[in-house]
Amino acid sequence: MPEDQKHYATYNDVHELCKESAEELNNWGINLIIAIGGGGYIPARILRSFMKKEDGSNIPIQAIGLSLYERLAKNSVEEVPGTEVKRLQWLDVNSSMINLIGKNVLIVDEVDDTRTTLQYAVEELQKDVKVAQKQLPSGSPLKGEETKFHVFVLHNKIKTKKGKLPGIAMNPKRYHAAVTTGDVWICYPWEADDIEDHDKLAKKNPIVALPAETEKITEEPSTTTVLGEPSPKVD
Amino acid sequence: MPEDQKHYATYNDVHELCKESAEELNNWGINLIIAIGGGGYIPARILRSFMKKEDGSNIPIQAIGLSLYERLAKNSVEEVPGTEVKRLQWLDVNSSMINLIGKNVLIVDEVDDTRTTLQYAVEELQKDVKVAQKQLPSGSPLKGEETKFHVFVLHNKIKTKKGKLPGIAMNPKRYHAAVTTGDVWICYPWEADDIEDHDKLAKKNPIVALPAETEKITEEPSTTTVLGEPSPKVD
Repeated sequence: MPEDQKHYATYNDVHELCKESAEELNNWGINLIIAIGGGGYIPARILRSFMKKEDGSNIPIQAIGLSLYERLAKNSVEEVPGTEVKRLQWLDVNSSMINLIGKNVLIVDEVDDTRTTLQYAVEELQKDVKVAQKQLPSGSPLKGEETKFHVFVLHNKIKTKKGKLPGIAMNPKRYHAAVTTGDVWICYPWEADDIEDHDKLAKKNPIVALPAETEKITEEPSTTTVLGEPSPKVD
Repeated sequence: MPEDQKHYATYNDVHELCKESAEELNNWGINLIIAIGGGGYIPARILRSFMKKEDGSNIPIQAIGLSLYERLAKNSVEEVPGTEVKRLQWLDVNSSMINLIGKNVLIVDEVDDTRTTLQYAVEELQKDVKVAQKQLPSGSPLKGEETKFHVFVLHNKIKTKKGKLPGIAMNPKRYHAAVTTGDVWICYPWEADDIEDHDKLAKKNPIVALPAETEKITEEPSTTTVLGEPSPKVD
């Protein structure tokens, strides 16, 4: 892909996008943020500064580690999309999952590209919550309490999506992208080797928001290999 | 504390500090990063762009959630130091801990203030690794393999530390602060309500690095209440 087809977001752009988005997200009654690492760490931490629970307290962040990316080259800091989801970290099924029951959970990632990672995260968390529900002692006030998953990304690329988010992707109260853009190569500041160069390139080639009415996404049946490993792997 | 005693780091400052620090950290043979959330998420993700394993592959990040902070006010994004460490998320003891055995682990946080959170993280991880060692099947090649914990922070404040990091804090191959500074109020960009104002204030009141020879830290006996909860709490 030629250099001039890359589009750049600065850190301050990302900060502003999180701030603006929090105005909408604060209407959703979110009580837990789950950051998909590594890309979701930075937007999730910034979002936390602008989101509060109804009682004014901070919303806790839990992290999961998923990777759909493979190394481009040994000496490059850039990454290219892969086709497999691998678990690097997961929530502790025994102790964390019960805390998800009945909650409004916001899953945060940097970009919704093929949607494969997001589908994996939502489906696997839904499965685990179902198990946690079954393990509740009879008479528990949490019995039958629904967990609602919501999604926030900095950028959603308009393209045919391999992954699906049924009940979420087309619901403006469950899915929020700070910017809807074309199927372009996005460069995030945390991947920049030279941050000053990056900022200059961002002035020339910012990420262009498409009008909301173009946001018609075709979800095609998933053909992606999803490797659901029962335990996190460190390397 | 009067407004003019606050000192500011911009996102680009943090990016540069991670890049510079990676030159040193890349000599340590690190094969796992543990980010202390929320403050460690952002430096950990940036560091990952500049750190590679010896084979050129990315270094995985796992996150733990610890909180030593309490809410300042309902309508403020700022936080003030507290005196209790609370676990919001921990590694999955059954599956993650075995992956720590024999590794060079880099624990990442934004600031080393009272050192209480860092002490908690190191001690608790050391305990868990010891348990994982004991559970290894006899004949495992990991038997007896040492796990070495290292610490990276963006800023270390010169002050009397309540927490201790024996074998780490005074070892320049185990502890690295990108900047050693005075006991000042540090404002990170991810806590900024208005990021443009923040950047202007950073020009007027940057975080001043103290000469290395001033870095004589007195560690006093810990009197901090450490609440080690067995399971993560969501709210």
